[in-house]
Amino acid sequence: MKSRTRVTSSLRQATAALTRAAGKPPAPVCHNAATSIPPATGMRLLTSGRQQPRRSLHDQSPRRSGAPSNPAMTFPCVDALESRSATLRQQAAAAAAAASASSSTTPRSRSSESGPEPSYTVGATQIFHSTSPLLLDHGGQLVEFNIAYETWGELNADRSNVILLHTGLSASSHAHSTPANPQPGWWEKFIGPGLALDTSKYFVICTNVIGGCYGSTGPSSIDPSDGKRYATRFPLLTITDMVRAQFRLLDHLGVEKLHASVGSSMGGMQSLSAAVTFPERVGRIVSISACARSHPYSIAMRYVQRKAILNDPNWNRGYYYGNIPPHVGMKLAREIATITYRSGPEWEQRFGRRRADRDKPPALCPDFLVETYLDHAGEKFCLTYDPNSLIYVSKAMDLFDLGRENQVAIAAKRAEREARLREGGGGQGGEGYHQDACSLTLPDEPYEEQPGQHQGHHDEGSSSSYSGPGQKPPADLVAGLSVLWDHPVLVMGVASDILFPAWQQREIAEALKMAGNRNVAHYELSEEQSLFGHDTFLLDVKNVGGMVRNFLG
Amino acid sequence: MKSRTRVTSSLRQATAALTRAAGKPPAPVCHNAATSIPPATGMRLLTSGRQQPRRSLHDQSPRRSGAPSNPAMTFPCVDALESRSATLRQQAAAAAAAASASSSTTPRSRSSESGPEPSYTVGATQIFHSTSPLLLDHGGQLVEFNIAYETWGELNADRSNVILLHTGLSASSHAHSTPANPQPGWWEKFIGPGLALDTSKYFVICTNVIGGCYGSTGPSSIDPSDGKRYATRFPLLTITDMVRAQFRLLDHLGVEKLHASVGSSMGGMQSLSAAVTFPERVGRIVSISACARSHPYSIAMRYVQRKAILNDPNWNRGYYYGNIPPHVGMKLAREIATITYRSGPEWEQRFGRRRADRDKPPALCPDFLVETYLDHAGEKFCLTYDPNSLIYVSKAMDLFDLGRENQVAIAAKRAEREARLREGGGGQGGEGYHQDACSLTLPDEPYEEQPGQHQGHHDEGSSSSYSGPGQKPPADLVAGLSVLWDHPVLVMGVASDILFPAWQQREIAEALKMAGNRNVAHYELSEEQSLFGHDTFLLDVKNVGGMVRNFLG
Repeated sequence: MKSRTRVTSSLRQATAALTRAAGKPPAPVCHNAATSIPPATGMRLLTSGRQQPRRSLHDQSPRRSGAPSNPAMTFPCVDALESRSATLRQQAAAAAAAASASSSTTPRSRSSESGPEPSYTVGATQIFHSTSPLLLDHGGQLVEFNIAYETWGELNADRSNVILLHTGLSASSHAHSTPANPQPGWWEKFIGPGLALDTSKYFVICTNVIGGCYGSTGPSSIDPSDGKRYATRFPLLTITDMVRAQFRLLDHLGVEKLHASVGSSMGGMQSLSAAVTFPERVGRIVSISACARSHPYSIAMRYVQRKAILNDPNWNRGYYYGNIPPHVGMKLAREIATITYRSGPEWEQRFGRRRADRDKPPALCPDFLVETYLDHAGEKFCLTYDPNSLIYVSKAMDLFDLGRENQVAIAAKRAEREARLREGGGGQGGEGYHQDACSLTLPDEPYEEQPGQHQGHHDEGSSSSYSGPGQKPPADLVAGLSVLWDHPVLVMGVASDILFPAWQQREIAEALKMAGNRNVAHYELSEEQSLFGHDTFLLDVKNVGGMVRNFLG
Repeated sequence: MKSRTRVTSSLRQATAALTRAAGKPPAPVCHNAATSIPPATGMRLLTSGRQQPRRSLHDQSPRRSGAPSNPAMTFPCVDALESRSATLRQQAAAAAAAASASSSTTPRSRSSESGPEPSYTVGATQIFHSTSPLLLDHGGQLVEFNIAYETWGELNADRSNVILLHTGLSASSHAHSTPANPQPGWWEKFIGPGLALDTSKYFVICTNVIGGCYGSTGPSSIDPSDGKRYATRFPLLTITDMVRAQFRLLDHLGVEKLHASVGSSMGGMQSLSAAVTFPERVGRIVSISACARSHPYSIAMRYVQRKAILNDPNWNRGYYYGNIPPHVGMKLAREIATITYRSGPEWEQRFGRRRADRDKPPALCPDFLVETYLDHAGEKFCLTYDPNSLIYVSKAMDLFDLGRENQVAIAAKRAEREARLREGGGGQGGEGYHQDACSLTLPDEPYEEQPGQHQGHHDEGSSSSYSGPGQKPPADLVAGLSVLWDHPVLVMGVASDILFPAWQQREIAEALKMAGNRNVAHYELSEEQSLFGHDTFLLDVKNVGGMVRNFLG
């Protein structure tokens, strides 16, 4: 074996020395040493000697003209995405041409209303239209808005048998099949006579959240003020905004008080929020696999999902309607989300290290079975849900915090704006919405670790303290939930959930108990009871459904 | 409050009805109903009536000409990425012009060697150049290659005091400061006289892995066969390939047997792999926060990182050298990776729900402190590590499996190619590398759940079975590690690690014990001992360093 060793003070020198010594190609170091071009903004340049046409292999003067050592890899997964972009571009152009040909005197052509429709909602909803403006928690308003909803069971005479069922992030109001839409809903086995939500007793309402894209007003809707789609002119949303919109529907239906507010995941956030916001209008509360305030890991996982969309050039700062949607970023976002919905133990059993095709060599495109599973989850979703809706609704989840401090701050802000509106100063045009709204810029200095700030032990007074096993919930959260001191509450969690870990449900239950509530039922499904992680609430009819039925009576 | 309710069989009908009835804008449903253009490939079209110039707000005929309800959001984080792309484009053009002006008769200009250099490696490495080809596990070869490395301590006379220290994915050989590079290394406090790796006794070698970009041959290196950068013509790598390259260096240095093979994270994989591949050449083994086979969650988290890079148009299937690197995708990849390196409990204490600037309204760009932390981690990394290296090295981690079945299959494949090489048929040009190598395409049918396949209980004979708490490692893994039945082994894990969860280290220890090894020391740091998750091995001098020192003696 021929070899040589040389000690130098820099890789570049080593490279140069090797080159001089042997007339060989330079030692293959990574982009070699520092650039002689002064970095403009603290960056260094990833470039070699000559700018080359894209996809050219020539980025150095050839030293030898032989065949390469190995063949070039191919990337069928990238090809597929590019091919879809091309198809979508053609379809958008065709739709535009068709719309142009039909012009403004003819009725709006179907193609101009084309769009994705998830297979589990074919649009058979009822629509409630509110013409009274909704002022949103963080500023901005919906001058008017729609709530699309579905119902099951019969409303009784005194309208006292209503269960409001809240959805998770990407679910629609189609929780159960209806005569108008016989497709099974996402809680098909939980709703019906004698089931968890017993339609022989109760009138169940499920709404689509505002901010979403299933018929309730969201970023893809038309802003009535100027007739254009909101896109990212849609104001930032909170879970409580969604709930206040839902209660406009209840007002309209003449429902003064809910028998129960029920939900899982984001729906479990809404369920708590409904009771905290309208304590006298909610009887019982069911909150499954949810939390009272989002924690950093879940914020981080949703943040990188949003970022995957923002990174897609087709996202175009939200203005992609009528063009190619950011399907590439959306697909990645859903793949990341899917990782958080299931659990490690289930995946060990289900996928292990199995590959999609053992007879082929490994690949950088999906290869392991778990990768093809994620790829498939992304494929199913990337054109069936509006990327801007994902951004807004997922951000609302991050902002969720039932701590007292947050509630007080939001309430003060809204009261101020409502007063201004009464005085006639806050009508159309988003007044009361700061000029710099939703454009927070990072501090000039990048974030640095501040060791002094996180050395201490648990601080009961801070809403940012960790509530782990054996720790008490922060006083701020106890205060924030204290309005629920007398509501019967069912809180459920799942040990294998990594997105809403079981300590978050323990935190809800403990905080309610510390607020004096003696009607808290808290259950935690062990890993032996469910390996399905966060998605357990969709799957476990026996445990989840059974406990909900028992609790609602 | 004015409102109306209407039940229809489809949202589109509801929309049309509302429009007809009131002359109002249509109900703002999500892209409304199905397109009249037949979907070409099962997709639906996200488009409205008219194709518009990018960033135009006009995607519908205006119904009202008033001011919008709310102001448009701004996205300073997206602006910053676009601005960096523009700067990089200019720099690449300037570098190309400079290279062109200096032409081929002058020495290579500095700018042609420009590139990123991480702050913790200034290139003061030794270089070993092997001219004997390395056949890689999954086909392909490196006709010749470099290993860049650093050393500490003194080699003794019989060369019996060598510790080979292996790196994690993105760390370089600069584990400790050297005279030539006084900057602190990534294990600065673990290496030195009397420390975990005691340089008064041992000669410590740390190499840069092949596939990386710190001086050892990787995708950014020049393929000597044709003088062009490998890019994605670099063959797929395994952890064992990295180890076999390292042992070429040991051959060159005349080191017959290591006193110990030591590593954490990917380094802990290499540490085990070294002993399994060359059992007679490794004395003791230290494997910290690693595994004997990657599990689906970790594969999934690395897969979405690679995908973030593949999604970046500037990645260009790997051929970006000399152009704008995929810094946007690379930044997101690092942000995702950072989520896996720390733990939930630490983040609760450190970030909680604190926002970067409480005085500003929430934003879709980084806003919560944990988001700015991730953003900063991405910023630091996105131009200092080669994206192709990340892709190859992270895939090598996914492919890691010390189960016997995998070892046998790989060994058979390599033996066949070595025989062919001896017969003169496998020289230059990557022969023995399948035509379809690294281009696995997905099955025509998307992956579907196969309930029958994952209902059963633990199957000891399958390498894909889950080894959870209280479960035994699969027989295949016990067989794969049985060659280490007599090696003293230190295995350490951290309860708060989500990337390499503690059951994976328990699995290593149990498999070794079942193979008959009575010299296995296994420690698991509880959540009380470390909240730092996977990164504990970088931080915990007391526990991690102390146990390593005691074990090495």
